[in-house]
Amino acid sequence: MSIRVGIAGVSGYGGGELLRLCAGHPAFEVVYATGETTAGQKLVERFPGISPKLAELVIRKWDPPSLPKLDLLFASLPTGQSKAALASVPAGVKIVDVGGDHRYVDGWTYGLADVWPEKIRAAGRVANPGCYPSAALLAIAPIVAGGLADIRQIIIDAKSGISGAGRGDGDSKLGFAEVNEDVSAYGLPKHPHVPEMTATVVQLARKSETKIIFAPHLIPMTRGILATCYLAGKATTAQCLESARKFYADRPFVRVVDQPPHSKWATGSNLVFVSYALAGENVIVALGAIDNLGKGAAGQAVQNANLMFGLAETSGLEGVPLWP
Amino acid sequence: MSIRVGIAGVSGYGGGELLRLCAGHPAFEVVYATGETTAGQKLVERFPGISPKLAELVIRKWDPPSLPKLDLLFASLPTGQSKAALASVPAGVKIVDVGGDHRYVDGWTYGLADVWPEKIRAAGRVANPGCYPSAALLAIAPIVAGGLADIRQIIIDAKSGISGAGRGDGDSKLGFAEVNEDVSAYGLPKHPHVPEMTATVVQLARKSETKIIFAPHLIPMTRGILATCYLAGKATTAQCLESARKFYADRPFVRVVDQPPHSKWATGSNLVFVSYALAGENVIVALGAIDNLGKGAAGQAVQNANLMFGLAETSGLEGVPLWP
Amino acid sequence: MSIRVGIAGVSGYGGGELLRLCAGHPAFEVVYATGETTAGQKLVERFPGISPKLAELVIRKWDPPSLPKLDLLFASLPTGQSKAALASVPAGVKIVDVGGDHRYVDGWTYGLADVWPEKIRAAGRVANPGCYPSAALLAIAPIVAGGLADIRQIIIDAKSGISGAGRGDGDSKLGFAEVNEDVSAYGLPKHPHVPEMTATVVQLARKSETKIIFAPHLIPMTRGILATCYLAGKATTAQCLESARKFYADRPFVRVVDQPPHSKWATGSNLVFVSYALAGENVIVALGAIDNLGKGAAGQAVQNANLMFGLAETSGLEGVPLWP
Amino acid sequence: MSIRVGIAGVSGYGGGELLRLCAGHPAFEVVYATGETTAGQKLVERFPGISPKLAELVIRKWDPPSLPKLDLLFASLPTGQSKAALASVPAGVKIVDVGGDHRYVDGWTYGLADVWPEKIRAAGRVANPGCYPSAALLAIAPIVAGGLADIRQIIIDAKSGISGAGRGDGDSKLGFAEVNEDVSAYGLPKHPHVPEMTATVVQLARKSETKIIFAPHLIPMTRGILATCYLAGKATTAQCLESARKFYADRPFVRVVDQPPHSKWATGSNLVFVSYALAGENVIVALGAIDNLGKGAAGQAVQNANLMFGLAETSGLEGVPLWP
Repeated sequence: MSIRVGIAGVSGYGGGELLRLCAGHPAFEVVYATGETTAGQKLVERFPGISPKLAELVIRKWDPPSLPKLDLLFASLPTGQSKAALASVPAGVKIVDVGGDHRYVDGWTYGLADVWPEKIRAAGRVANPGCYPSAALLAIAPIVAGGLADIRQIIIDAKSGISGAGRGDGDSKLGFAEVNEDVSAYGLPKHPHVPEMTATVVQLARKSETKIIFAPHLIPMTRGILATCYLAGKATTAQCLESARKFYADRPFVRVVDQPPHSKWATGSNLVFVSYALAGENVIVALGAIDNLGKGAAGQAVQNANLMFGLAETSGLEGVPLWP
Repeated sequence: MSIRVGIAGVSGYGGGELLRLCAGHPAFEVVYATGETTAGQKLVERFPGISPKLAELVIRKWDPPSLPKLDLLFASLPTGQSKAALASVPAGVKIVDVGGDHRYVDGWTYGLADVWPEKIRAAGRVANPGCYPSAALLAIAPIVAGGLADIRQIIIDAKSGISGAGRGDGDSKLGFAEVNEDVSAYGLPKHPHVPEMTATVVQLARKSETKIIFAPHLIPMTRGILATCYLAGKATTAQCLESARKFYADRPFVRVVDQPPHSKWATGSNLVFVSYALAGENVIVALGAIDNLGKGAAGQAVQNANLMFGLAETSGLEGVPLWP
Repeated sequence: MSIRVGIAGVSGYGGGELLRLCAGHPAFEVVYATGETTAGQKLVERFPGISPKLAELVIRKWDPPSLPKLDLLFASLPTGQSKAALASVPAGVKIVDVGGDHRYVDGWTYGLADVWPEKIRAAGRVANPGCYPSAALLAIAPIVAGGLADIRQIIIDAKSGISGAGRGDGDSKLGFAEVNEDVSAYGLPKHPHVPEMTATVVQLARKSETKIIFAPHLIPMTRGILATCYLAGKATTAQCLESARKFYADRPFVRVVDQPPHSKWATGSNLVFVSYALAGENVIVALGAIDNLGKGAAGQAVQNANLMFGLAETSGLEGVPLWP
Repeated sequence: MSIRVGIAGVSGYGGGELLRLCAGHPAFEVVYATGETTAGQKLVERFPGISPKLAELVIRKWDPPSLPKLDLLFASLPTGQSKAALASVPAGVKIVDVGGDHRYVDGWTYGLADVWPEKIRAAGRVANPGCYPSAALLAIAPIVAGGLADIRQIIIDAKSGISGAGRGDGDSKLGFAEVNEDVSAYGLPKHPHVPEMTATVVQLARKSETKIIFAPHLIPMTRGILATCYLAGKATTAQCLESARKFYADRPFVRVVDQPPHSKWATGSNLVFVSYALAGENVIVALGAIDNLGKGAAGQAVQNANLMFGLAETSGLEGVPLWP
């Protein structure tokens, strides 16, 4: 079986990672790719190491009426642009939107693939979780769902590599000379990723009262996110770990580990590493580490597509992380 | 006036920064330097860019009986080694211990120079604060002292450059290839910096019940710490900023800023940048950014020494941070 | 077909990359792995993201008498240790030695796979080229073989990421704090990689008089090598490119490109990018960019093994490079 | 004495370093600063750690007619813009142009301060050398001037941190995510720094026939340049070192060292480290390491100004390099 795949927004970092994963996917055939600033180039001009079979494909401007016959569309467009862009895509084309426009709106399924794969198998329209929510929610889901913590207030302090901020054309604030040797917080108090985290916690906990305090930080690395989450609760570390191991039993991309995970353990993969520590008597520290372009974007998008098409969930995603 | 200075532990990162600052200090003359692994070398062999006047000074093994006549000793020895080492130093030699052995013990003054300079002016033995506590305490001090927060629980999520972990001979876990492109938490739940933070908060708040939840993280940069502190409280951002500006009025090294500070703003200096944001209705986020080797170690040590000797507090510390 | 594979020296950086590639290879089954400092650990303890099927394999001490039945052994031992270690491996086990002991000695085949695949197909013992020679030789081979340059003197100025220097236990000179924000030359005038480059140039040029001036440099990145090679010659850039395109026609891992290649284009892959520029009237600048752990070590080793076993040359090596 | 100083182009990286050095200079008073994109801001908005005495100075648009009374102007404008801009500056204002427009043209003095301080003492208009030429020329000057090498062809392979490419607004190619973990050559075959290197070599060697082959590279660090220069010659390493020590006797910013220098040794300073190695029998490798914003730009500019005003040459430049 060959599934005809399109990638909208291939020239961004998320789009490039989608291309890389699709190029190695046994059932996907990329037949269409769009990019605003790169339209007219061949894929090989933008991705010099791309597979020969994809090298000559020409990047186009996004133009729904001229869409070729597709089975699957990955959309990696800037948040705010995908809602209108995707409205006219035929219903027969399954879509995974890596951008933020369709999370918890309009009947799209929120694609938290490691938590509710069954929902996604039935879906034709999936909104991929944000990169930060992927790291944080996968760490806290077992605690929240298991009732091990008081969810009225959850503090999430997250650290992300720079690729999470996008290519940032025109902004020297993402330039190497300024970002290197620097750490800073941003996006306080209202980052756009808060609503999807809140909605997910509410669903998992089956309680409506929750408040997420979210402080994202940029740190000088290209890829990777570590979410450090603080929840009120008296469960021991062992109880948290056991709870997580049960919650994620047989889930192929989640690794529950005994020590604090390193973001680098996930580089280039769709894995998430979660762990727990008790700090003081009544604070649970939940840690989630991912590659922001893997589990935090393209990896989870491919996992969602695998579920939507009834493929093996790990298809095209078996690659071992790069180390060091 | 020339103050005769010794530096014990000159070949570590903190010791090297002490040497750099002392070399540029108008009243200090470095006459003695020790290093376990570098004894026998001239300073210029270890620090190729050192000032010519110091280049030929030979590094010695630490040996109290052979101590030359000194007015001031900076000790930058591994925690656990300075207590015994400094016991036999004559009372007439003023000491700033950059290591951890004398914080809140034995009558040594805790050298949080930007908060209680008067205590330090009177002291002959000063324990320099740890690097993490310097960043965190300076951010939360105005809030805690001003009664703007409930201090029963304070969460401190701190991100440090790798030099804070020391030279780490023998440990590839601090090697470039493994640390680069990586972030991880460590030291949970009981990092040795917790007691001095707890003791200081208790003093500032004049309350005894407090619990510090402290999660330090290593991030891939050489210098810099950002402490992100979460306190329960309903003060607005404006109230926090105003409170901090009053608290630090005329303190020369503290910059209260309106936006989240970048650690890079402090590189190479003794400055600390603090700011505040309200997250949700009842969580104050206090941010403190420093150079871990500046305000977090050598810079504050020189500031303490300036106070102890009645010099201008900024003497030798006027250097503008390196940017970019 | 399943080829039973052993990896000696799995806990080093080269060994880890071998493990990663073997884990994704359709014909290889890793049944044996050794490591001096990690013996007794399961692979998953050292490589937290390793495939589940390999996770429980226990790392052993290298001990030839207790070698299990193997078809193929990859040796990634420190240079100087593999000669003795591999002497007692049964002749029926094919070996690729990633270390330096067997290059151009004792009848081993020098595994410059992109240049002379036929030699390697017939070999049972292959010495993998060094990382620097892989980058430099693949850039200059078409020029040298095509007689486009005077080979009496070739200057090779190479820049390598830190993983090329190994894990460096015990040496703070490879520590993040000291390597970051630094570049330096080393190994002048006689780096151990010079003889294999000289021998290969002599073979390719069918002339005996050549002198390689080789200056390696360490730069602050984890992976990647760029070799900038200066040869006397009057060929135009277009002639050099054309010559290289002919020389490497149908070779699957070599990309001849029109612009100066970036080392990052190859990250995580077995690709090599080569290009040429004329500087002045009579100096050809040949550029070769690789991942030092890919084409410079494990990637080329797997390519060699594919050739030795008559597999598709690209088997297990189709992964698109990681970007960014 | 207080010298009234203006800085044109203060918001670039070179301009920022000029500001930092002037802020710490005992004889300079910055009274004027311009920036195209930052006009209207106070200096403290752009440089949060700037000295309080300069914090409130407002950045202006460059506008010669409204120039205040100045004794000295540092111009750090983009190459191509300073020629016209500086034409109308009154003759009584001494100028150091850090940009490229006035090198070896129109009677401006080429400010290679460590080589010909006397020429500069007499000058009112000084063109600061480029960053790459500063590193390379200071390494090869003793060899070239001493007749130790055949200068008909000199190969210069230089590695620079990213700040050397400027702030790069609008160009994701200087973004952290793309520059990190990457090395590449650029600017072949005709970089604009070649003519000033050629002209200087001709002067030093008192010969007219020379050809500079120059290959600059960008490497992932913020500051620093290492120039690796290859010259034909039979002098021994010892002869080269001795020649350099004589050539630079009493020059305060040049350090002739026995081992290959690290760029990091110079960070934040006006120092240059030079060393030599013989590679093969007849190739001299000359190495020069600097901070591209120090000796390669602002540091040498201040040194030139010190000479022009008859100040101590090291005034304001005594700072020891930052390490690590």
